[in-house]
Amino acid sequence: MDRARVEAFSDGVLAVAITLLVLDLPNAVPGGDSLADQWLTSWPAFAAYAVSFLVIGVIWLNHHAVFRDISRVDRTLLVLNLLLLLFVTTIPFSARSLATYLLVGGADARLAAVTYGLVIEGVALSFTAVCVWAWRQRLFHAHVTAIQARSAIVRFGGGSIVILGAVGAALISAPLSLAIHGGLALFYAFDQPRRPSASS
Amino acid sequence: MDRARVEAFSDGVLAVAITLLVLDLPNAVPGGDSLADQWLTSWPAFAAYAVSFLVIGVIWLNHHAVFRDISRVDRTLLVLNLLLLLFVTTIPFSARSLATYLLVGGADARLAAVTYGLVIEGVALSFTAVCVWAWRQRLFHAHVTAIQARSAIVRFGGGSIVILGAVGAALISAPLSLAIHGGLALFYAFDQPRRPSASS
Amino acid sequence: MDRARVEAFSDGVLAVAITLLVLDLPNAVPGGDSLADQWLTSWPAFAAYAVSFLVIGVIWLNHHAVFRDISRVDRTLLVLNLLLLLFVTTIPFSARSLATYLLVGGADARLAAVTYGLVIEGVALSFTAVCVWAWRQRLFHAHVTAIQARSAIVRFGGGSIVILGAVGAALISAPLSLAIHGGLALFYAFDQPRRPSASS
Amino acid sequence: MDRARVEAFSDGVLAVAITLLVLDLPNAVPGGDSLADQWLTSWPAFAAYAVSFLVIGVIWLNHHAVFRDISRVDRTLLVLNLLLLLFVTTIPFSARSLATYLLVGGADARLAAVTYGLVIEGVALSFTAVCVWAWRQRLFHAHVTAIQARSAIVRFGGGSIVILGAVGAALISAPLSLAIHGGLALFYAFDQPRRPSASS
Repeated sequence: MDRARVEAFSDGVLAVAITLLVLDLPNAVPGGDSLADQWLTSWPAFAAYAVSFLVIGVIWLNHHAVFRDISRVDRTLLVLNLLLLLFVTTIPFSARSLATYLLVGGADARLAAVTYGLVIEGVALSFTAVCVWAWRQRLFHAHVTAIQARSAIVRFGGGSIVILGAVGAALISAPLSLAIHGGLALFYAFDQPRRPSASS
Repeated sequence: MDRARVEAFSDGVLAVAITLLVLDLPNAVPGGDSLADQWLTSWPAFAAYAVSFLVIGVIWLNHHAVFRDISRVDRTLLVLNLLLLLFVTTIPFSARSLATYLLVGGADARLAAVTYGLVIEGVALSFTAVCVWAWRQRLFHAHVTAIQARSAIVRFGGGSIVILGAVGAALISAPLSLAIHGGLALFYAFDQPRRPSASS
Repeated sequence: MDRARVEAFSDGVLAVAITLLVLDLPNAVPGGDSLADQWLTSWPAFAAYAVSFLVIGVIWLNHHAVFRDISRVDRTLLVLNLLLLLFVTTIPFSARSLATYLLVGGADARLAAVTYGLVIEGVALSFTAVCVWAWRQRLFHAHVTAIQARSAIVRFGGGSIVILGAVGAALISAPLSLAIHGGLALFYAFDQPRRPSASS
Repeated sequence: MDRARVEAFSDGVLAVAITLLVLDLPNAVPGGDSLADQWLTSWPAFAAYAVSFLVIGVIWLNHHAVFRDISRVDRTLLVLNLLLLLFVTTIPFSARSLATYLLVGGADARLAAVTYGLVIEGVALSFTAVCVWAWRQRLFHAHVTAIQARSAIVRFGGGSIVILGAVGAALISAPLSLAIHGGLALFYAFDQPRRPSASS
């Protein structure tokens, strides 16, 4: 089954990206402030870490749910999947930038927060494109109905609109924007996509 | 089989996390102390490396043993598994903090050692939650008996109590706490979970 | 099936290499230039990131397409595949060097751009060698015809000539050379290799 | 098949370790020496990179060859495999130390080269232990004969003696020792282990 290798490569990229986030946690240095003070001062790094872990985790959950229903892949689907992975691998970079500038405030914090949001928006739009393409080219399993496919597309399309809201919020407050991303990821984590078929 | 991809992603995260530990080993620099002296001075980094490798290795062994008995997964199990992986990816960070502050002593060393212990406690509790949920939702293979499932839950629950002991020891001595974590991981490495079924 | 593990290991290396590229994106520092200025100044890092992601992505696409047609592997094929992976893992290093020296110009920029091109040339030649060896040793599936095998060899051989052109262009202009690599990768991403067989 | 997950996890660790080597290649900095001079000065980093890539590549080849013949795994085999992986993940660290001290010479270079050799010796001995244990516990496929199993054990045992020679050579010359490791890995790469069975 051709699908297996797309999943294996995507799993690899998602696993590396989610684990690389840890490199952005602060390396405390003895001699100056106490460890507790250093950690408290760098709370944005921990917040960006937790939210980004959740976001990539949810991307994996959704990737898993979408590709489970795909029976075959074509070159375009693979390229769209690569585009999705490009945005995913950029998350550790934009998370680090956001953590660095969150407390600095001003135009820099806004730019960092907008960038972080646009990267996640890129993931959501790539997901929508994967679903639309798979449906049009009949790449889904035969048991996937039009209602299910439309529901998945609406789901990701809807998510991308909420993410745009978080990008807008970034213009007002970078921490608020980060909180919206975290909340949205939590919602997706626990929201079950409807699946009539018995096989989970 | 749906289980395969959860295992593949978890294997990826565990493999990256266990290999990233090496980045915390000291980068010796020529010109000052001899290489031998530099390595001796940074023995906590090597100790934290060895113990953390063992801990993640044992997590993999247990993850392997638990998921081998699971026949299907639901969204909640995947989220609990993500929580487990969140704690795992935090191990390189907390190991580095512990190695940095072990010889500094005082409140900083205690905080670092307590944090290290709490991260591992988080893994143990997530494992317990995975087992409890899988049993309640009948996600295990049919051949898994109530006795076996309870035994696994007791096993991880018991481990989480010993880890709490290591957290308590961290308040007295950070090296002692690290030694307890190492000893516990060694115990788990060689302790065979009972499996009546012939297929290993 | 013996092929599975070659694919798994190659997927792992490709996934790690493509994700490690992110470590070469600039770590902006508050206090001096604005974040926007810092990012604008380091545009070569973003350009090298995008092109290198695309290049490794296309390598994965082609690896996937070639090994899908291979029915068994021998030791020499595994060694040729390791050679291919050696060049792949060197891409993050040569991309970083190119990004660092692109704006410096002069002999340093030329050397960095030539090195970057030669690394990618090494990948293309390894691919050609894999295809030639697989064909000679009858490692392809029975349904692969001589026309298809020759087409794959011509494809990679042709690519390696265009890459030589990019290496030549590097002697004139490093940015031009990087643009050629990006264009070639884009071409490969959307160019469908001919496959008469129905199974995708 | 239980073996699959051991292979997947080992592939992950080997893939990450072999790719992390690239982080030890020199980050050239504009402003002082030319790029060519900086690269020439740090030739030990490139040499250690090439040899270590080859060593980990050959470890993968042998891991692949040994586990292909294993039909089931037990807890002890998994622990021995973890020990093997512990030595593998330490290779990037010891390669970096060797590259840093190779040109410094003296006791530091000897210590770095001896350490590098002992890490590889640890891999060879773990491999021997895996084979011995698998043979004693009848974990190999039924078609594996005593002659084949003994041949594999002799192969790894013999390798571990040559590696001891490289460790001895490290006391005289660190570059010579590195060259021996490279030569041995090249020999293993092209040496076909005898396999009477038709299925490759």
